Amino acid sequence: MSNKPLKVALLGCGSVGSQVVRLLTEQAGDLEARVGAPVELVGVSVRRLDAPREVEVPEGLLTTDAEALVTREDVDVVVEVIGGIEPARTLILKALESGASVVTANKALLAEDGPTLFEAASKAGRDLYYEAAVAGAIPILRPLRESLAGDRVTRVLGIVNGTTNFILDKMDTSGAGFAEALEEAQELGYAEADPTADVEGFDAAAKAAILASLAFHTRVTAQDVHREGISEVSAADVASARDMDAVVKLLAIAELRDDQVSVRVHPAMIPRSHPLASVREAYNAVFVESEAAGQLMFYGPGAGGSPTASAVLGDLVTVGRNRLNDTTGVGESAYADRAVRPMGETVTRYHVAIDVEDRAGVLAAVAQAFADNGVSIQIVRQEGRGADAQLVVVSHQATDAQLSATVETLRGMEIVREVTSVMRVEGESE
Amino acid sequence: MSNKPLKVALLGCGSVGSQVVRLLTEQAGDLEARVGAPVELVGVSVRRLDAPREVEVPEGLLTTDAEALVTREDVDVVVEVIGGIEPARTLILKALESGASVVTANKALLAEDGPTLFEAASKAGRDLYYEAAVAGAIPILRPLRESLAGDRVTRVLGIVNGTTNFILDKMDTSGAGFAEALEEAQELGYAEADPTADVEGFDAAAKAAILASLAFHTRVTAQDVHREGISEVSAADVASARDMDAVVKLLAIAELRDDQVSVRVHPAMIPRSHPLASVREAYNAVFVESEAAGQLMFYGPGAGGSPTASAVLGDLVTVGRNRLNDTTGVGESAYADRAVRPMGETVTRYHVAIDVEDRAGVLAAVAQAFADNGVSIQIVRQEGRGADAQLVVVSHQATDAQLSATVETLRGMEIVREVTSVMRVEGESE
Repeated sequence: MSNKPLKVALLGCGSVGSQVVRLLTEQAGDLEARVGAPVELVGVSVRRLDAPREVEVPEGLLTTDAEALVTREDVDVVVEVIGGIEPARTLILKALESGASVVTANKALLAEDGPTLFEAASKAGRDLYYEAAVAGAIPILRPLRESLAGDRVTRVLGIVNGTTNFILDKMDTSGAGFAEALEEAQELGYAEADPTADVEGFDAAAKAAILASLAFHTRVTAQDVHREGISEVSAADVASARDMDAVVKLLAIAELRDDQVSVRVHPAMIPRSHPLASVREAYNAVFVESEAAGQLMFYGPGAGGSPTASAVLGDLVTVGRNRLNDTTGVGESAYADRAVRPMGETVTRYHVAIDVEDRAGVLAAVAQAFADNGVSIQIVRQEGRGADAQLVVVSHQATDAQLSATVETLRGMEIVREVTSVMRVEGESE
Repeated sequence: MSNKPLKVALLGCGSVGSQVVRLLTEQAGDLEARVGAPVELVGVSVRRLDAPREVEVPEGLLTTDAEALVTREDVDVVVEVIGGIEPARTLILKALESGASVVTANKALLAEDGPTLFEAASKAGRDLYYEAAVAGAIPILRPLRESLAGDRVTRVLGIVNGTTNFILDKMDTSGAGFAEALEEAQELGYAEADPTADVEGFDAAAKAAILASLAFHTRVTAQDVHREGISEVSAADVASARDMDAVVKLLAIAELRDDQVSVRVHPAMIPRSHPLASVREAYNAVFVESEAAGQLMFYGPGAGGSPTASAVLGDLVTVGRNRLNDTTGVGESAYADRAVRPMGETVTRYHVAIDVEDRAGVLAAVAQAFADNGVSIQIVRQEGRGADAQLVVVSHQATDAQLSATVETLRGMEIVREVTSVMRVEGESE
């Protein structure tokens, strides 16, 4: 083993970056033993030198010139935790070109332009690791790309956004509506002032793209992901799920079917007996189904400075070891090159609640609407009587196009006063 | 990438081995793409050539001469799934000496004599991987030794034996006693005719030793593990747990405290709100607490031919890639060299149910017995009245020696008719 230190440059010193600095300092002895050489922080790029920080950065390390830092000849590994597309992309590409390996937590960039980064890493013969980009501290990317490398993953169902899980959990436990639950999440710091990226599923969609790429050995970008957020989820939807002994979760779903990949993010009902149903508050979990291993679940904190820093440091140790051994780890694996299945052709199931006229023949007419669209029904439940009559229908599997056409048909029917809840059902075997 | 095939020798063709053969055949294309070279099975050692098998082994590959197979010059990787100490140890050592890398699922051997194997691998400059040895298909060893390499693990709580989890789950859901639940487990194939290795915690103890070694970067063998099985767990214990909104699980526990490692396997009550409480039937899960990542859980099938083969093949892909890149992965990491804390000094909590005389002052006397042994009480609950009076006491944290001395004191007291249940309490913060 070499005694030459592994020189690390850090881009960004916000909530994650400051925890990276802390761990590099506090666990220096352990890191040296595990990497096989001392790990030395040689520079930290920030936007403002005088901004308040959670950690004391050693004298002389701070710089506002990120580009000069990543192209320093003596830097072995660049850790990027600034997020966003630019300048992160340019800095990562320059770091790789200059011969550094890269560890990043940047899900948005990987989901938008991963292939450019992977190709640059491959060309440079360097590592690009990004465990922290999905589900914070939960080791999920490494298991997918290494532990399950001898297996065939068929489906990934993930709760990968803590903000929306907190809101939906609150709606489930307290009966609150979306707006009220969002407000509480904002007060507690679980949601940002502008919650769009979380609430409308953009954050989860980026993670879904990354998970799908790794699980199915093909390139999937954020543009390939069908995305629906949770802002339309109502207290009635949540109550309806409860009646079905189910719970509403925002799921990132990646499935392999007929050698095509289906990738989507949307709220869905899952049975309370499903392991994902017990993922509470802002926790994350990724449920993986594979041909040989069966059902696996990975659970933990999906965000936060310290958990995310744990994932970054894990990658840093691996990349550092590889560097000392003059090798690289598993790079991009996209040999399968599969097509992405359009959402309309994706197979799913719908739960539909309908406010109907109180007259004979209503059930038959509704059932006919499903049949006319080629959708078969698993459960019909009639609730209330008279003016309050409501029908709840859960379909068998059909394509999303057939199912949404059914809902359109229902909306046009005279006997239907209102379609009060439409939600997909996941996590059940047919 | 090389086109020279990676040559694999398989030792054992039982339930795991036959699934390894199946996956090597069915997923040959994917394996080649992931390893970077075709993966070729060149020999399978068995005890009897004509034994019935779950899989058709290609003509000419079967042999009864395992030693000749592992020392063949052209073999790159030896996969050992025969289990037990000998001849597995000798064969693995010979394989490493002959220049092959090794993938094994052998928890008993690793827990008894891991250091000998690790040293042989290090001396030979070859890989020794063993993900399948703990919790079947669940990727837990690789996350511990790689993903969490930049963090500081403080505690591991594992349900790592499916047989005992099935029995305890059955006792919890049906109210059955141990003997009845064991019988059902045997009928369903979850328990063997001689269930000792599972029921008395030997299997879990081996896995606890492996988990502790990896989590704390030190050598821990099966002999270091305090072990209690579940054969003494009564329906009354399970009912008492239920009254506390807890559930009884056989836990493998590895903890770091004052730089000492405490490793033990015993039944314990955990709150129903704990993620491990929802691990049902024969499933396994490992709950990891670390300084930066916080609480993580890894869940999945802990045994079975196909899940275990998935873990074996994942290792095989990594070892194969390392081989082609002329490198090795993370070897043994035992730099911390920590002492193992004796069970008497291990800090835990007790739940004690006591059948007491119906007279004034009983509660005071019992409380005094705890105080005399230096144990402070968290909860006392009095149940029933008159001749059926029972006291349930849950202690605060104390050493196991103090707690067991308290129980001895109680047993000697005149007012105590019987100590009906003694069980440790885990998974709660104090």
